[in-house]
Amino acid sequence: MALATQHRPRPSDDIIRGRAARIRIAGFDVDGTLTDGRLWFDGEGRESKAFHVHDGQGLVLLRQAGIVVVLVTARSGPAVERRARELGVELQHGIEDKLACVRALCERHGCDLQQLAYMGDDLPDLAVLEQAGLSAAPADAQACVGDRVHWRSRLNGGAGAVREFCELLLAARNGQPPPPAVDGRGA
Amino acid sequence: MALATQHRPRPSDDIIRGRAARIRIAGFDVDGTLTDGRLWFDGEGRESKAFHVHDGQGLVLLRQAGIVVVLVTARSGPAVERRARELGVELQHGIEDKLACVRALCERHGCDLQQLAYMGDDLPDLAVLEQAGLSAAPADAQACVGDRVHWRSRLNGGAGAVREFCELLLAARNGQPPPPAVDGRGA
Amino acid sequence: MALATQHRPRPSDDIIRGRAARIRIAGFDVDGTLTDGRLWFDGEGRESKAFHVHDGQGLVLLRQAGIVVVLVTARSGPAVERRARELGVELQHGIEDKLACVRALCERHGCDLQQLAYMGDDLPDLAVLEQAGLSAAPADAQACVGDRVHWRSRLNGGAGAVREFCELLLAARNGQPPPPAVDGRGA
Amino acid sequence: MALATQHRPRPSDDIIRGRAARIRIAGFDVDGTLTDGRLWFDGEGRESKAFHVHDGQGLVLLRQAGIVVVLVTARSGPAVERRARELGVELQHGIEDKLACVRALCERHGCDLQQLAYMGDDLPDLAVLEQAGLSAAPADAQACVGDRVHWRSRLNGGAGAVREFCELLLAARNGQPPPPAVDGRGA
Repeated sequence: MALATQHRPRPSDDIIRGRAARIRIAGFDVDGTLTDGRLWFDGEGRESKAFHVHDGQGLVLLRQAGIVVVLVTARSGPAVERRARELGVELQHGIEDKLACVRALCERHGCDLQQLAYMGDDLPDLAVLEQAGLSAAPADAQACVGDRVHWRSRLNGGAGAVREFCELLLAARNGQPPPPAVDGRGA
Repeated sequence: MALATQHRPRPSDDIIRGRAARIRIAGFDVDGTLTDGRLWFDGEGRESKAFHVHDGQGLVLLRQAGIVVVLVTARSGPAVERRARELGVELQHGIEDKLACVRALCERHGCDLQQLAYMGDDLPDLAVLEQAGLSAAPADAQACVGDRVHWRSRLNGGAGAVREFCELLLAARNGQPPPPAVDGRGA
Repeated sequence: MALATQHRPRPSDDIIRGRAARIRIAGFDVDGTLTDGRLWFDGEGRESKAFHVHDGQGLVLLRQAGIVVVLVTARSGPAVERRARELGVELQHGIEDKLACVRALCERHGCDLQQLAYMGDDLPDLAVLEQAGLSAAPADAQACVGDRVHWRSRLNGGAGAVREFCELLLAARNGQPPPPAVDGRGA
Repeated sequence: MALATQHRPRPSDDIIRGRAARIRIAGFDVDGTLTDGRLWFDGEGRESKAFHVHDGQGLVLLRQAGIVVVLVTARSGPAVERRARELGVELQHGIEDKLACVRALCERHGCDLQQLAYMGDDLPDLAVLEQAGLSAAPADAQACVGDRVHWRSRLNGGAGAVREFCELLLAARNGQPPPPAVDGRGA
């Protein structure tokens, strides 16, 4: 994996904040980013996965701050559909070409890739991460991704990495109207 | 999140013990406090969550010591209902305004908020934590909460944080009649 | 909890080995010892729990070495029944008084409590642990138990603690006929 | 367990690379290697287990690089069948004698055991690991296995150990045609 050896130098906090302040769409990979990467298969071959309430709360806060939130995943199924629905965020599932997907998203929302933040953890996310205005990866992302993003969380995927990234995006909004009160669904 | 930056200085052990000795009701958030924050969704979109036996044992010991135990959660569903029932503790679920909920609880039990201990881990718990006689958070609580409570556990949510807090409350009862023998349900 | 403060000094390795060599029955608590203490409740309120293959392999090795293996738990249900059956070990479930249970076990097998090894992690195990010939606790046992046993594992409950204890018991059998080949069920 | 005390000195990186470059078949144990070793049993006694997306991505990359990938397990059931099918890899389940199984595999594919890489974590894998051209174990393998393999991963079973080993095998293929683009199933 030649790609894995090309480390991209990490930008300064100021540059990160500048990029974060421009974001209008925040895209997130699901497995390994919004989850810890584990897929449970049960005695009938059906798939489960686990989402963290802290991450969910972060996505709700982003949405309330006026940022469009989209989950982008190659897999699909009732687990992620249920979670996206209860958080009130858009779901793009069964996506083979994630870059084409987020390009279409940006076009639909009338913005460009510099206004897209994206967090992912493995090879299928790499093309999007290299084009996004602000790219991020969980602490336990694969090296081929983690070495090449603008920002990396302290926490692992499925255990608060997404919330950390949401807090970064929200902090960059300072000076704008504060987010409304947290809604009661507890994320 | 301006709130997250206002760190409240932690009170001394003596003050904690004094506050703990007055407690008559102990309230606990569920997701992230009594669980590790993960919500499993299965192949039919149904939700599971995991509770720890050590925490359950702690809640039973509190109850046996005469403290009213209440779980307070914005979510609801069969998982938490089953757990509350088998531990013999009260469940307040689907709660949008947790402060209103615990105020009503205190009124019903003829005590005030200084006699309420509360443990929570994220924004929806903040209003209660700021009013409770003794406020606590798991080690892995969100910073906006963890920086502002009286006491923080060594263990994470869903992995013994609640038990630690129960032991603190029970230790403050020293000099009172000892708790009856542990019941056989193994929590 | 006054009990929790009475630390029992840990015996030397030689004394442990001497006690281990006499063991004919090995008893194990389930939740927190053979599992990590978590109880999953699903969308219909049904309980799941997770057992580790390393621990299962250890129990099979004990059984093959001629030691009687018994799981002793206050809870009950299909999960632990299935695991006990596939490992070929005895299950005592729904047990309110664990000491009475292991006394009866010893009597049935014509041995005394000095020939019983027992591993547990919380208050309901304490009476047995104080009477067993060799008492053990997982690394993450509650302090009231962990401070009072003969031996404590390096690994946590549900993550190899039981296997470690099995290896200790098996090593003490050195000089006896070696265990037969590992059976094919993969534990 | 006398075996556990016979530590085999670890070969140099050059020797590992030389052995890796010859591999045509990669075999993997399932429980404890492709999973974290935990078996969930639900309220009806049915078994679930969890696979990691990073590991799945690694197996897909191996397959795309022309290496035959086989999962070899003593257990069986719908969970592992579903995972093997979606990754497009061969499954040998219900296997009591793993060495006989991989010998037959090598014969069928016209290669010898020096062209077999194998990763496992416990006693039932030991006979294969001692014969394979390149043997590997997860960081948390049992000592009886981990002390005797050519290579040990930094990550635990079920949490990226398999992916690490896949990357090692792929890197040894340098100079050969690069793998085709990652397929869209997201592993």
